[in-house]
Order: sequence, then structure tokens, then C-alpha cells
Amino acid sequence: MAGTDLNALFLHQLKDTYFAENAILKALPTMMEAARADDLKVAFGVHLKETEQQVKRLDAVFRSLGEKPEGVTCKAIQGIIAEGQEIIEEFGGSDAGDAGLIAAAQAVEHYEITRYGTLIAWAKQLGLAEAEPLLKETLLEEENTDGVLSDLAEEAINPKAA
Amino acid sequence: MAGTDLNALFLHQLKDTYFAENAILKALPTMMEAARADDLKVAFGVHLKETEQQVKRLDAVFRSLGEKPEGVTCKAIQGIIAEGQEIIEEFGGSDAGDAGLIAAAQAVEHYEITRYGTLIAWAKQLGLAEAEPLLKETLLEEENTDGVLSDLAEEAINPKAA
Repeated sequence: MAGTDLNALFLHQLKDTYFAENAILKALPTMMEAARADDLKVAFGVHLKETEQQVKRLDAVFRSLGEKPEGVTCKAIQGIIAEGQEIIEEFGGSDAGDAGLIAAAQAVEHYEITRYGTLIAWAKQLGLAEAEPLLKETLLEEENTDGVLSDLAEEAINPKAA
Repeated sequence: MAGTDLNALFLHQLKDTYFAENAILKALPTMMEAARADDLKVAFGVHLKETEQQVKRLDAVFRSLGEKPEGVTCKAIQGIIAEGQEIIEEFGGSDAGDAGLIAAAQAVEHYEITRYGTLIAWAKQLGLAEAEPLLKETLLEEENTDGVLSDLAEEAINPKAA
């Protein structure tokens, strides 16, 4: 049964990532609302639209495996999002709050970057030719969002907060 | 009171990262024990030693601010580590288990990469000349560890697991 174990692990992590993307979909409107700077609201709005497409891409990956799209509870993203909410409560409404929101969003992005990176390596190993490009497309978007947030922080938000 | 808010946010995230590093120190021996491949055991062992130094560097950052080193509960790292433990329980002892351990360790690394990245940007903004190089030294180590784990996965662990 070559590949059975890694296939099972791939499916498990796909479900974990599906849960995470759906949790992010729910969290982004709150982050958008909490942001003070218009540029940051826009960046979160753009990423909300991207995340909707990323969920659809995961649907397609499940279909390519002959599996039904479903999530398994991802404690990691729950913890990352909970930490972001604490920052909103503690620093929200201030210019430093926006800096904290960016930090929280980048923690989310990095979680996704590591998960998609792993899924791509496993898809490659398992010869999942349909899944691999779909996962790569999303990884590029997550890396791009991380970069956009870094630029926004360094050029506008951090100087204002300091 | 220029900088007060971002200073408070910096200190908050420093405490969060201190908690995270100490949680990782406790988790790494379990991961080392769970690993089957000798190369992976060694990689975790090397990172354990590095993490001890990283905690000392954070101590020095606290001192440079005139603050006592202390942690605040970091739900994110708790979630990430809990997810790693689930992988050990579900896939441990198999070759796919090693692939899962690497994925879990890389999720930890990426959490640290995003936190140190943010701390460095804020230290720069706040002119914390002592803190910045200490944080940068650790960030380079985390990025290096992430790369070592990717190479190990792609060259040895994933092919064995598939």
C-alpha cells in the first residue's frame, strides 16, 4: 500500500487548511471593521475576495481526490485568530491598533504559507497533478498578501503608530 | 507621548514571543522522541540548542528595555503545538509520521518568523538599537531551520513516506 500513509496525511492537512480558510473568511470582516486606516481596510477587503476563491480552489482539490470538501478543527488557526481578537480589544481604535492588526494578519498569512508549502511538497511527492497547481496559485497569493502588509506597515502604519 | 502605543504593543508581542519560545523548548524533546529518522532527530536536537540561545536573546531584549523577562499566554503557539501532538498521536511511528512532524515543526517556525519579522519592524521604527540586531539574529536562525526542514522533507522523508 505504497503512498497510503502520506495520502492520509495529505487529506488530513487539506481538511485542516479548509477549516482554517473558512475561519479566516469569518474573521476578516471583523478585522476590516477594526482597521482605522483606509488602506488597511482595502487590503483586508481584497484579501477577503481572494480567500473566497481560495476556498473554491480547495473544493476543487477535494474533488480531484474524489473526496467531499470538509474541515477538521484546526486549533492553530483558532489560537492565531483568538490572539488577533485580543489585540483588537487591547489596542483597537488607536494607530498602534492598526499595527497590531497587521501583525495578526501576517501571523494568519504565515500559517497559510507553511500549510500550502507542505501540501505542495506532498502533492508533488504523491503525483497529484491536478492539486499541485491549484495549491501553488493560492500560495503565491498568500505570499503576495504578506508582502503587501509588510509594505503598508513599514511605509504608513508603523510611522503613524510610533 | 509619541511612541507610547507602539512601545506597549512591542512589549506585549515580546512577552507573547517569550511564552512561545519557552513552550517550544518544552515541546521539542517530545518531537525529537517521536521522530523515526535519525536526521530528523538531529535537526530537532540542533534546534533545541538554538532555542535555548533564542530565549537568552529575548532576556537581553527585555533587559535593554529595562523590563523583567516574562511571558503572556500565547494561544497561537498553544494551538500550533496541540495540532502537532495530534499528528504524533494519529500518524506517529510511521514514515508519514515523520513527514507530519516536519509539517508541525515548520508551522512553529513560520509562527516565529512572522513574530520576529514584526518585532524587528517595530524595533526599527522605535529606534531600539540594542533589540533590533538580537531579534534579527534569531530570525535568521528560524529561517535557516525552516529551510533545513524543507530540504530534509523533500530529499529523504517525503519519498520514504510515499
